[in-house]
Amino acid sequence: MTEFFTLVPPEDARARILERVQPLGEVEEVPTYDAVGRVLAEDATSSQVLPDFRRSTVDGYAVQARDTFGASGTLPAYLTLIGEVAMGRETDLKVELSTTAIVHTGGMVPEGADAVVMVEHTQRAREDEVEILGRVAPGENVIQVGEDIAPGDLILPAGHRLRAQDVGGLLAVGITRLRVARQPRVAIFATGDEVIPPDQSTRPGQVRDINSYTVGALVEQAGGIALRGGILPDDYERLLGRARRALDEGADMLVLSAGSSVSVRDMTARVFDELGGPGVLVHGIATKPGKPTILAMSGERPLMGLPGNPVSAFVQFMLVGLPVVYRLGGTTPPRRFTLQARLATNVASVAGREDYVPTKLTERDGDLWAEPIFFKSNLIFTLVRADGLLKVPLDKTGLEADTLVEVLLFP
Amino acid sequence: MTEFFTLVPPEDARARILERVQPLGEVEEVPTYDAVGRVLAEDATSSQVLPDFRRSTVDGYAVQARDTFGASGTLPAYLTLIGEVAMGRETDLKVELSTTAIVHTGGMVPEGADAVVMVEHTQRAREDEVEILGRVAPGENVIQVGEDIAPGDLILPAGHRLRAQDVGGLLAVGITRLRVARQPRVAIFATGDEVIPPDQSTRPGQVRDINSYTVGALVEQAGGIALRGGILPDDYERLLGRARRALDEGADMLVLSAGSSVSVRDMTARVFDELGGPGVLVHGIATKPGKPTILAMSGERPLMGLPGNPVSAFVQFMLVGLPVVYRLGGTTPPRRFTLQARLATNVASVAGREDYVPTKLTERDGDLWAEPIFFKSNLIFTLVRADGLLKVPLDKTGLEADTLVEVLLFP
Repeated sequence: MTEFFTLVPPEDARARILERVQPLGEVEEVPTYDAVGRVLAEDATSSQVLPDFRRSTVDGYAVQARDTFGASGTLPAYLTLIGEVAMGRETDLKVELSTTAIVHTGGMVPEGADAVVMVEHTQRAREDEVEILGRVAPGENVIQVGEDIAPGDLILPAGHRLRAQDVGGLLAVGITRLRVARQPRVAIFATGDEVIPPDQSTRPGQVRDINSYTVGALVEQAGGIALRGGILPDDYERLLGRARRALDEGADMLVLSAGSSVSVRDMTARVFDELGGPGVLVHGIATKPGKPTILAMSGERPLMGLPGNPVSAFVQFMLVGLPVVYRLGGTTPPRRFTLQARLATNVASVAGREDYVPTKLTERDGDLWAEPIFFKSNLIFTLVRADGLLKVPLDKTGLEADTLVEVLLFP
Repeated sequence: MTEFFTLVPPEDARARILERVQPLGEVEEVPTYDAVGRVLAEDATSSQVLPDFRRSTVDGYAVQARDTFGASGTLPAYLTLIGEVAMGRETDLKVELSTTAIVHTGGMVPEGADAVVMVEHTQRAREDEVEILGRVAPGENVIQVGEDIAPGDLILPAGHRLRAQDVGGLLAVGITRLRVARQPRVAIFATGDEVIPPDQSTRPGQVRDINSYTVGALVEQAGGIALRGGILPDDYERLLGRARRALDEGADMLVLSAGSSVSVRDMTARVFDELGGPGVLVHGIATKPGKPTILAMSGERPLMGLPGNPVSAFVQFMLVGLPVVYRLGGTTPPRRFTLQARLATNVASVAGREDYVPTKLTERDGDLWAEPIFFKSNLIFTLVRADGLLKVPLDKTGLEADTLVEVLLFP
């Protein structure tokens, strides 16, 4: 079988697979405090009211606001001190006209009081008397019951990926267990007669497997579970057998890092077609690095054939694979970060091809400079030395030195 | 003891503690493939040469370049095919003048050959003869031995926090175990008679502990280990005893989320001073939220007293605590991300105070808008609804609607 490349523009390629990928839709329960990075399987709503008592926002004196009208430094209002509200307990103090009670930040505002005067605006003349040196409006320095959240209020929608503060918000209303989306399981195989495990010594002609590890690490950064399947020889039956078994055993997505020669890439495409329809959707993307990338579906399960070259594999998995993992996991990729920088050198490209050049960011004379890293071999060290990728759009034949460019930062 | 606030500008406050914090300097060994997010304890250098054989970058025919000089589509050079280089194995083929051998991408270039002609620029007329349709220069489509990395080359410097591709680069040269910095252990206590664990029902006057969890999650995002010590009552001796024990048991940093009333904050400062010099360095920062933040050192160990208010605690730990954790861990914080957006409403502030307003980012009419979230109570839900923090600089009295502002994204 000879290769027949019909290069697909990158945006189209992504769309062709993403429009077919559905969230797994399976749910599991986890403790909320362990849920950072997990995705909500359903809307989180509050069953509680917060705060559930009137709280003071300052250290001071709880009063009836009208007792302070007209009060000033030169003409204080004099109130009788009836006690102090203890933290963490309900108080049975009642603040009536001409009386006041000590209340601390976060403490309960006693019945009868409708405002709190900050301690800085008061003076203690006698043990049982407080001078109020300024006026407060009704409600001032008081959080009303339910002002934060009321029963039934939406806290966070299904599909939200939880951050540190979200866990805090859920715990605040007593949600200590959560229903979250199951994490997508991504099976990753390296193929190639020349590929050996990283802990072995290379003999001439051999290279170590690194794609299993770089792609695996990206999968885990996107909230998936990486199932590293090891290295397979360039043998159609073995490849097909192992791919099938991975899907049978519950992989939600399959990634083959598939060597770089034409015959090996064709083998990957044939395996993908054999795994069930719709089969191969994209065989070749109009991009560099990563042109020989293959995108396919076996039923509802996405399949991705990556070039063996470690830079191509990394860049294509970052651009196409990660959105697929996020979608399987029931969420959307985080806002992608680009930094604007001044281009240090001319960058040549070809119209009709989208290029991604590993690029280092350096600060010079207060400016941020983008320094593309060119390596003939395009090996992994270009990415090790880079801070991000410089994109040369499809319709450009290059980018000029000294112009402002956008650098896409690594995830 | 009355509180004596000498508010320190935020930059100075950070500097006062950071200049005293030293990397822990302790080392542990981990498998490289597990090391994403860990910090290199020493320079990683290669002991190997890569590639260690001459590799082809294309599918094609290995040749002596001078055999192709003058070759073209109309006047091909005819070479005798002597064999095919198998992937992953040393080849004993020798390419002499007027001969050629099949080589695949990543395969070994045989002895005698000094270039590879892409298969697209060739034609197979007979079984043992190849037509070369264009010329190649010596070295073309060949990666020389050591072109990627040579023995002794620096791969990554000490202090580097490892990313997915870095793990790939290290594995490529056979580094399967790494010496990395020990992760800083951060003990976190919540204090306050009103604070209860999240899994308990609140009675009036009580609130659930969330700072232990939000701060803990931030610590772990920065590569630290969070040791949640639970909730302590507002009792000087108990607080001091538990703080001491945490340090004795090996905590590298201590965080007290210390209630919000003046007396409780003073208690925190006294505890910190009692734990050994230099004691309290900063008692109050000219910032909002988080003015009552306390920074201290007990010998080489940083101590941080956070306000009980969950927004204040989160924001101050993000701005001051995280750089400390990174430094203890032997590295520097990652590039902080800000997005430029158009401000949706006026934001008032006070000159001499640096404000951080939780802010939502929304896209409208192709523009990115920053919508500050104002909540009287300043509870955790302002952060749950926000995408980042809007900074109002120290010298500004506010920001005007419709102007471009920078929003600092959450870690």
